[in-house]
Order: sequence, then C-alpha cells, then structure tokens
Amino acid sequence: MTSNFSIKERSDGLFFFHYKDGFTFESGKEISELILAYECYGELNEAKDNVILIHHALSGSSHVTSHKKNRSNGWWDDMVGPGNPIDTDSYFVICINNLGGCYGSTGPTTLNPDTNRAYQTDFPIYTFKDIAESQKILLDCLGFTRIKSVIGSSVGAMVTLQMVIMYPDLFESSIMISSTSRAYASNIANRLIQSRIIKTDPEWKDGYYVKNPIDGLRTARKLALYTYRSSNELDDRFKKLEDINIRNMTLKSDVSEVERYLLYNAEKFVKKFDANSYLFLLKAMDLYDITDGLGKLPEDSVSISTRVRVISVNTDILFPPKQQEETYSILKPVSKNIDFIEHVSDYGHDTFLIEIESIGKYIVDVLEGK
Amino acid sequence: MTSNFSIKERSDGLFFFHYKDGFTFESGKEISELILAYECYGELNEAKDNVILIHHALSGSSHVTSHKKNRSNGWWDDMVGPGNPIDTDSYFVICINNLGGCYGSTGPTTLNPDTNRAYQTDFPIYTFKDIAESQKILLDCLGFTRIKSVIGSSVGAMVTLQMVIMYPDLFESSIMISSTSRAYASNIANRLIQSRIIKTDPEWKDGYYVKNPIDGLRTARKLALYTYRSSNELDDRFKKLEDINIRNMTLKSDVSEVERYLLYNAEKFVKKFDANSYLFLLKAMDLYDITDGLGKLPEDSVSISTRVRVISVNTDILFPPKQQEETYSILKPVSKNIDFIEHVSDYGHDTFLIEIESIGKYIVDVLEGK
Repeated sequence: MTSNFSIKERSDGLFFFHYKDGFTFESGKEISELILAYECYGELNEAKDNVILIHHALSGSSHVTSHKKNRSNGWWDDMVGPGNPIDTDSYFVICINNLGGCYGSTGPTTLNPDTNRAYQTDFPIYTFKDIAESQKILLDCLGFTRIKSVIGSSVGAMVTLQMVIMYPDLFESSIMISSTSRAYASNIANRLIQSRIIKTDPEWKDGYYVKNPIDGLRTARKLALYTYRSSNELDDRFKKLEDINIRNMTLKSDVSEVERYLLYNAEKFVKKFDANSYLFLLKAMDLYDITDGLGKLPEDSVSISTRVRVISVNTDILFPPKQQEETYSILKPVSKNIDFIEHVSDYGHDTFLIEIESIGKYIVDVLEGK
Repeated sequence: MTSNFSIKERSDGLFFFHYKDGFTFESGKEISELILAYECYGELNEAKDNVILIHHALSGSSHVTSHKKNRSNGWWDDMVGPGNPIDTDSYFVICINNLGGCYGSTGPTTLNPDTNRAYQTDFPIYTFKDIAESQKILLDCLGFTRIKSVIGSSVGAMVTLQMVIMYPDLFESSIMISSTSRAYASNIANRLIQSRIIKTDPEWKDGYYVKNPIDGLRTARKLALYTYRSSNELDDRFKKLEDINIRNMTLKSDVSEVERYLLYNAEKFVKKFDANSYLFLLKAMDLYDITDGLGKLPEDSVSISTRVRVISVNTDILFPPKQQEETYSILKPVSKNIDFIEHVSDYGHDTFLIEIESIGKYIVDVLEGK
C-alpha cells in the first residue's frame, strides 16, 4: 500500500506533512486531508535507529529548542541540543505539533474545505487516540519503524502513554513525566471552569469569533498557571505585598506581584494560542482514559517488553503523584521493565521545565540503559 | 457618651442595627449611617455573660440555624441550637452579617444617599479592621462587655482573629477554624482569577450593573468551590465518568457528574449573592494581614490572657495547615493559653460544615474549659 502524502519544509525548518488519504476520527467524523507540523533536531543515521520522539505539553509546539533555521528559544532548550541530556549530537529528535493544535497541524484554525473558512467549533471532537494514530501515520510515512525513545511531559506524556499502549513494539523505551492515565474529577472541575471562563467572554460568540477571545483565554490561562506551581513556591516567591496605601486603594489596585506574574505569563500565551484549540484540547483531556473505563488494561490487550519510566513530582497539584502511581499500577502488570520515580521539588507541575539537570538525569539513565 | 442608634426587628427575626453617628473606614472614607443585620439564638441571661459571637464565612449570613421566626435551614444547623455543641439552651448566640455583605448590613448594595442609588463600585474599599470595629460598635450598644466565646470559621475566623487582636479583653475564649492570618500569594492568585472572571462578564459593566452578572459570578464561585474540597474527595466522589458516546460528543457535553455538582452549588450562590459584594470581600481578603506586614505582633501591642484555639484541617487546600501554623506562631508570644489542632479529614476546607461532631468537640472543650 502506498500512501498519498507530501512533505514541505518552510524556511524556518517547520515541516508540513500533508496526508491526502484523509483521516477518520474516533468519533467517526472524517477529514479529507491530515496536516501535521513537525520539527527535527540532529542527524538521522542511516539505519534510522537513533530517533527520539518528543511530545510537547499543552502550550508547547514542535519547537523544542533552537536550530539552524529557527534560532528562537524552544520550550525545552536546555534539555535538547548538542551536549544536552537529550543530545542531538547522537540522536535525531522529532517533535510533532499535536493534531488539534494551533501550531501548524490540523485543528480548529484549519480551513474547512466545506465552508472555506476555519473549522472553529465545527472541528470534530478528537481524542488522544486520534493524536496517537495521526502521529503513527507520519512515523510510518517517514519510515521510522523503531523509535529509540518516546518522551513526553504533562499533556505530552498523555500522548506518549497512549502511543505506548497502542504501539508497544514501536518504542525501545518510553518516559512519561508529570502526567496521568485518566481524567480525574478534580482535573475535570478545573478544566470546566477554564472552558466556562472562555465562553463567558463576549468575543467568544459560540466559537465563531473573528477575534480570538483573549480576555477569557487570558483568565483561563491564569487559572492553569496557578496549578503549574505549588502554593509553597508562589507563597515564598511573592511573599512581600505591594506597598499598600489603603487611602488610594480601589477594586482595580494590585496588592501582590503575583498578579503581574500571572498576567505576564498569561499574556504571552494568548498572543500565540487559539481559544477554540484550547477548548478542544481541554475536552480531549476530559475524555482521556487509558483503560477505557475498565480501571486496568486487559492482560491480553497489550504487552510492553521495553523499558518504561514514570516520573512524578511530589508538589505537583495538577497531576499529583497519586495519579502517576496509578499510571504505574496500570502499566505494571503488562510491562516487563518499568519503574516509578517521585522527584522532590518545590516547583510543582512545571518542574520538568525548570530542573533540567535532575529530570535530564532520569532521562539519560533510560537512554543509556542504566 | 450616648450613641445615636436604633434597632428594628423584622418579622423573620432579622434585627437591623442603625447606627446614626456614622462610620469612618480605615481608608478615611465616611458613611453617614452604619447598618448591621444580625440574628440571635437562645436567651440572654440577666448578667449578659452567656453571649457567644459567631462569625460567618464568605457565603454565610447571620442565619446560622433555624429559629422560631425563621424556620429555614441555617449554614451551621447541627452545630448551633438546643442540645447541639453550641447549645442555645445555655448560650445566647449572636451572628452579625459582616459589614460589606449583602444580607442586610451596609455594603455595595446599600443605597448611597449622595446618589439615591446603590453604592455598587462606589462603595469604600473596606478591611477586616473595619468589620471588627463595626461589630464592636454594635456589641457596645447592646451592652455586651464580656463575650463568653467568639468563634469563626474560614473568612469568619479572619474576623474573629482581627477582633481578638483589637479587643483581647472582650472575649473569654476564641476559636478560629480553617483560616489564615494574612493574604498569601497563592490565595491572592486564586482570588484575582475569580475577580477577573466576574469582570469578564459583559453584564458586569464596571460594577454599575442593572442585573447581577451571574454568568461570571457562577464561574467564579465554581473556582471557589473547587478549593473548598480536597482533590481526593472530589476524585473519590465523582470517580465514574458519564457514559460517553464519542459519536455524539460536542464541546458542550458533560463528561463527569462533578460538572453538575459545581453547577448546582454555584447556582445556589448566585441566586443570593451580589457580585460587587463578592469583589469587595475578595479585595478585603487580599488586604488582610494581622501583623500589618511586620510578620509578628509587636510584644507590647497586644496581650491575650484568655483561651485561644486554632484549628486546621490537613487536606485544606484553600488555607492549608501551614497558614494556621503561622497564625499560631504569631499569637503564641502574646497569648497565655493557646493551642493548635490539625484535624484529619478528607473534606478539606469545608470540614467545619460537614464533620460537626469532631469540630463540635473541639469547640465544646473550650466552652467547658477543658
């Protein structure tokens, strides 16, 4: 069977994979063309056996780190690159913008051929199975039949886990950092509030907006950011309140630098992220359950013979250690070689972006078979 | 000095205290008349020495429990009443709607005599010192010079603590449950998100609304509710997801009962609470610091000779135990008789509303001098 696809490289090194055989979502909905944007780092060896697949987190893109054609910083600069823990002098790294995203891959901002305008909320509800399947199509087309390691953090690790379950023989090792195996009620609660915030913005217009509803998106992002750090970290970092003059105080006055911290980071996000893409991703996260509601993987459904490492951080309030312990418990009966690490840090969920040395060591050990 | 005041009782037993000497806020702003709504339970003895002052939490009112003239349920029904831990067969209980509230006391919904319409966002920024001072005025007018015990939970305990610091000799004992001594950055972060959600509602109109902006208020309340329980409790309670048919799923579909739980409870709230009153209270909480930024109470500023009990709950994510430990540490050097309890429960911040027996025992022991 030959697949009908093309790959184009943009001047900044962003590749666009156009798959013209169409794509059928888990929901049964179909699109006539699948587009995935991806970037590559390092050199592919002749045997094509030095590939590392990285899965980006919620706000990330395929731009993991800077490269010759795009010098701008990536989201995991110090982790990936020549001489870094994921060493591009040895490995060929690929990172694909997830299906449903807004960094080049097919998603709510993509042109709907039926209407000749963006899908917006007409985009199909998608799941992590759809993301996994779409990435498998690309890897097949690239001729990557054996991946040295697949590594994801946060939402990225939800993709990683889904792919390991669906294609266990594709990966020589897999590493999942600060993630989960299913949607917990506490997370769903947080996400529904974020969704509702966006939808309260009068600019949202049921998703058929002309202008990204940034007021709502900004506040939703603040709520997400609030869960990315531990309360201890925020409390220690922004201990001092502003100099408050109660005589001049109004409802609009700031009282703590934490307000500017959240605003600054939320502002960066709304400049680059599309509200509908955010809403669809939140929904996909709500639908995530690696066991399809069974609570465990049927014994004959999957067998993982290669190395698996599950990493959690003790202060993570978004995906607390108990969620990763459950991931470990679910994988253990079907895995030959799995371990679980609870890393201690005050940086909460964001630790993988901050403590590069510690997290890098956990990764390097797996890559080196230690 | 005679004070110029009147007290009227409504048919449902809600008393309105009108203090006509005016009130000056910490900010320097003045109002010509202070109104405080309050309710009483049990009989005042002749010596007026069986008074218990209860401080209500954020969403609470003076209606602590049902009584002859108002049979509707209160917010602490099983805690207060004949034969209950706070036994109205022995004690005379009074609960005052906090200044700034929307259950009868002067607040943003009160008529501004200058404009002949509600203050709305023209209401003065107020602080917990203002709340404490306003309650002291009422207690003085009622001739209560010695209070058997002052008891508060959550926001209520912020009032309790403020009053104990300002009027240490007024109280024979004081109990503060699940609260804090100052605004922590993590709490400010959460509150600023709630404020922003309300202000994103197009109905808010800078606070000069005709119709309470319930969409924003509802979502803000969901976020508050989210912090009132531990994630473990939510996760255990709403473990099962809805029966999901991915083919019919849309962005609007529910995936978990937790969505209805939050909606149901938020809906109850928006029917009775005013958005501006909520915003001003959040700001007052942001400004709260019992030490005025010093980190401790100057040794000669206050001396508390009577019993003080600080109670925390191990799973409280809104005001985690470390915050109450700090309250205890701040009070310890100026208190003769203080203790600290870390109660173990899965119910998080809301425990004081749920585990009446355990929390009641901690209160009864103080009332009985045990």
